[in-house]
Amino acid sequence: MNFGFLLFPDLEELDLVGPWEIINVWRAYANGPEHCFTVSQQGGEVRCSKGLKLMADYSFKNCPPLDYLLIPGGQGTRAEVSNAELIEFVRSQAANCKEVLSVCTGAFILQAAGLLKNRRATTHWGSLDRLRAFDDVTVEEKRFMRDGHVWTAAGVSAGIDLALALIADQTDEETAGKVQLYAEYYPSQRRYGRAHLDSRAPAYLKSYEERAKSVSDEVSL
Amino acid sequence: MNFGFLLFPDLEELDLVGPWEIINVWRAYANGPEHCFTVSQQGGEVRCSKGLKLMADYSFKNCPPLDYLLIPGGQGTRAEVSNAELIEFVRSQAANCKEVLSVCTGAFILQAAGLLKNRRATTHWGSLDRLRAFDDVTVEEKRFMRDGHVWTAAGVSAGIDLALALIADQTDEETAGKVQLYAEYYPSQRRYGRAHLDSRAPAYLKSYEERAKSVSDEVSL
Repeated sequence: MNFGFLLFPDLEELDLVGPWEIINVWRAYANGPEHCFTVSQQGGEVRCSKGLKLMADYSFKNCPPLDYLLIPGGQGTRAEVSNAELIEFVRSQAANCKEVLSVCTGAFILQAAGLLKNRRATTHWGSLDRLRAFDDVTVEEKRFMRDGHVWTAAGVSAGIDLALALIADQTDEETAGKVQLYAEYYPSQRRYGRAHLDSRAPAYLKSYEERAKSVSDEVSL
Repeated sequence: MNFGFLLFPDLEELDLVGPWEIINVWRAYANGPEHCFTVSQQGGEVRCSKGLKLMADYSFKNCPPLDYLLIPGGQGTRAEVSNAELIEFVRSQAANCKEVLSVCTGAFILQAAGLLKNRRATTHWGSLDRLRAFDDVTVEEKRFMRDGHVWTAAGVSAGIDLALALIADQTDEETAGKVQLYAEYYPSQRRYGRAHLDSRAPAYLKSYEERAKSVSDEVSL
């Protein structure tokens, strides 16, 4: 099995490397797809949105056929949705993929490739309205969304949750648990300050907050 | 201000890129250290533990003086603790740093550089006993630990929590909250399977589980 991670200029670092880590732990320790690699249009160096420099393993020309394809988001997606060669690469590879995934504004690349047509999907909270503007996409304000073989995650860090859910789906809960333990993915639930109460916060976050509040109300009765 | 991220062969990808993302969002959107970059012994390409290829911005020779230094973990740390040139780079830069941080088994590089002497520290759950073997380090099974200007995180994904805590400390809660919202770091609390109940799980995880259980017991009364 081949799991490809798409690189392009100004991709958001954690959108890519969160799932990269989780999927590669699956590969290395729990019989995941044996060949995980990065691919960019030309191959060679790609500078990410926050300045990290990556070297692609393959170019579009020499990339093997993919079974899984993950597309990160980032500022770069705003240009790449108009990059005909990249969109055609995504469309043609996705046609033969078992599962196709995006993180954050990577959803807009899936959309440009026609992969969100009549599907439910999500994206970074700051871009939900831009995604809603496409008539044939139903936007869900979830941490991640699966609709058939198309999986989309909310912003940046949500790709980690997406990748674990993919593993649980493709294998079983215990395999996902083994990967989660290796990556020690038991995050703090700390919310700093009041930013998370922003009116633009996605519905899934609001529901977390309401659930936490209702539990603490019940406990304090 | 200069924030350096140390690269070496076989570092664990998310150990590095989790904090890289958070610190660079701080830089880009909330007046964090204006110069964030990677540095490796020779400069040039570094292959990570799971195969991702990074290009270092600086070598030890041309690296500017650092105000902050972050050291990721990974299999590579087992060789690097004996790399005299790398340990001397860490020791001499750390001497003038405001804050020094490690993620996962990056703690062993801090130890080798003498930076954990008479300090409390943490590391990946699978390496807690190895760290306890050093008489002058007090090992705490926490998600992250701060002791003076030396900060250490538990395994892999814990570097994200560490980086947000650093920002809250260096600025304020609202700044950390702004970064948290940008990165949409509101992770699922899902535990897959039973792996997290492993007897080797760190104390902080066991206390999460007990707290969750006690809340659900109270609610179900």
